[in-house]
Amino acid sequence: MHSIKNLQETIINAIHQHSYPNQPKELYEPISYFLDLGGKRLRPVLLLLAADLYEVDLEKAIKPALAIELFHNFTLMHDDIMDKAPLRRGKDTVHKKWNDSVAILSGDVMLIEAYKLMMQVNPQILPEVLNIFNTTAIEVCEGQQFDMNFENQHQVDVSDYIEMIRLKTAVLLGASLKIGALIGEAHADDAQHIYDFGINIGIAFQLKDDLLDVYGNPEKFGKQIGGDILSNKKTFLLIKALELANNDQNILLNKWLNAQEFVSNDKINAITDLYNQLNIKTITEEKINNYADLAYSSLQKINQLEERKSILKEFMDMLMIREY
Amino acid sequence: MHSIKNLQETIINAIHQHSYPNQPKELYEPISYFLDLGGKRLRPVLLLLAADLYEVDLEKAIKPALAIELFHNFTLMHDDIMDKAPLRRGKDTVHKKWNDSVAILSGDVMLIEAYKLMMQVNPQILPEVLNIFNTTAIEVCEGQQFDMNFENQHQVDVSDYIEMIRLKTAVLLGASLKIGALIGEAHADDAQHIYDFGINIGIAFQLKDDLLDVYGNPEKFGKQIGGDILSNKKTFLLIKALELANNDQNILLNKWLNAQEFVSNDKINAITDLYNQLNIKTITEEKINNYADLAYSSLQKINQLEERKSILKEFMDMLMIREY
Repeated sequence: MHSIKNLQETIINAIHQHSYPNQPKELYEPISYFLDLGGKRLRPVLLLLAADLYEVDLEKAIKPALAIELFHNFTLMHDDIMDKAPLRRGKDTVHKKWNDSVAILSGDVMLIEAYKLMMQVNPQILPEVLNIFNTTAIEVCEGQQFDMNFENQHQVDVSDYIEMIRLKTAVLLGASLKIGALIGEAHADDAQHIYDFGINIGIAFQLKDDLLDVYGNPEKFGKQIGGDILSNKKTFLLIKALELANNDQNILLNKWLNAQEFVSNDKINAITDLYNQLNIKTITEEKINNYADLAYSSLQKINQLEERKSILKEFMDMLMIREY
Repeated sequence: MHSIKNLQETIINAIHQHSYPNQPKELYEPISYFLDLGGKRLRPVLLLLAADLYEVDLEKAIKPALAIELFHNFTLMHDDIMDKAPLRRGKDTVHKKWNDSVAILSGDVMLIEAYKLMMQVNPQILPEVLNIFNTTAIEVCEGQQFDMNFENQHQVDVSDYIEMIRLKTAVLLGASLKIGALIGEAHADDAQHIYDFGINIGIAFQLKDDLLDVYGNPEKFGKQIGGDILSNKKTFLLIKALELANNDQNILLNKWLNAQEFVSNDKINAITDLYNQLNIKTITEEKINNYADLAYSSLQKINQLEERKSILKEFMDMLMIREY
């Protein structure tokens, strides 16, 4: 069995070894640039972990794992254009460094490259793997569209929000694990349990991200604390606060949401204060724990030795025990 | 055997019957809108014609044909953003009617939908079909990038230009035919000959388009005559004229290419006059005929009854004998 760190290195090597044509350079340079920005490579590692659970030769899983990472980066490259984001991981985004056309077309090529890599699975499982990949790819696009819609939507329910993060974030984690399991020739039931495990850690992971944006340790979180508050992002915390606020709190909350000019820290402090009054931190932690429990229960259903499954538990803990 | 008109109707019906989810509507409405703008449906018809050559049940070819049409429309939707085109077939483009984000994301979904449809071929030919589709999809993106590069490139050779139109236009015609032939269980040699047929009619078709933009009959061409001249588009005609111009003609040509303010008709007339002096119309016609001859010779190599192949010849003639 391989360690998480070991699998991360396997993926990083595979990314570096995967080469592209030299011409047209406007198409291929941005792909290498973007992949080199780094990241935790969570999704391809999940694919390899799932395959490794079934003791399959990991060589069979590397190209599909790379496909998942390329697909994920395609979505980020296109999302950055739509969000008009100037930076990713502290570096210029592709549409900023080059232009929108380059980011559109290089993103398109990454998606096609992802299919090229994904189809290099055993022909016997090819239709099933492509079915999952197609369904997931569509769902991720739907999630991005719902996320954009929420920006202009006055009322968003918790259930709408959970469905959005399931589509935008969780299904790709589930699909990575399920494809890995299929490469490992897992039984259909197990493939479904491992998919459910991915869905639930995906939702818990995104909720944790929402929480850390407000209550995280600035030195460990890696992003600016309060960024979601400043941009009025409809996170679980804001949606829940709007749901629970009494009349006075609601007026105050909306005053800050509608404020055009303000000192950033004042807005962050005022809204965090309202969250504290409404006990939002504990409510969010409980929600995260619910999904972590669901994930754990899916994991238990997988018909494999506990000692082999322990690495998936370890991965889940690594994601969940991100510090405040 | 089915007539071209009959196959066109089959495709139009398939487009109308293919339904999308209702939500999120910002994602799916633009796809239906764009597909409803019409078009000659050349590529899916080619796929069906090739399958029909081998007397296969056409039901097997309809989803892949639809995949080709969706892929083609994905490229058009993204190209329209890059070209900042306000109109397509006289109607608002998607990025104009909605916005860039919608056109990016709906385009992405069309590409994924194309894969979903394409993979519904017989599992035995699935890897080969997807290989062709992936390679072609990448080539079309490369062609678009080369085309954009040419706008800012001072010197473009005829060979660079032919390679660009091979990638941007011809390979998708070749791939449509080859995938149709594979669905018809064609022999590998025949699949290659029919691909070559497609490449050569594709190049001839694009050169004819360049020619009609200058020498076409405005009532029959459907686009404004001289559009390429006004936008300094590096077509075969302009590249050849720049190659053949003597010193005086070169100065005059560059004067018009660099002119910032002018009466449209003056520029069109002046450059057309230079083309006439340089015999560009005949040179282009000869080039078109060369590729048409190559296409015809590929067609002759296909090991099928002449009477069955005649419909492909008819299709080629339909494309080539577009009127001045």
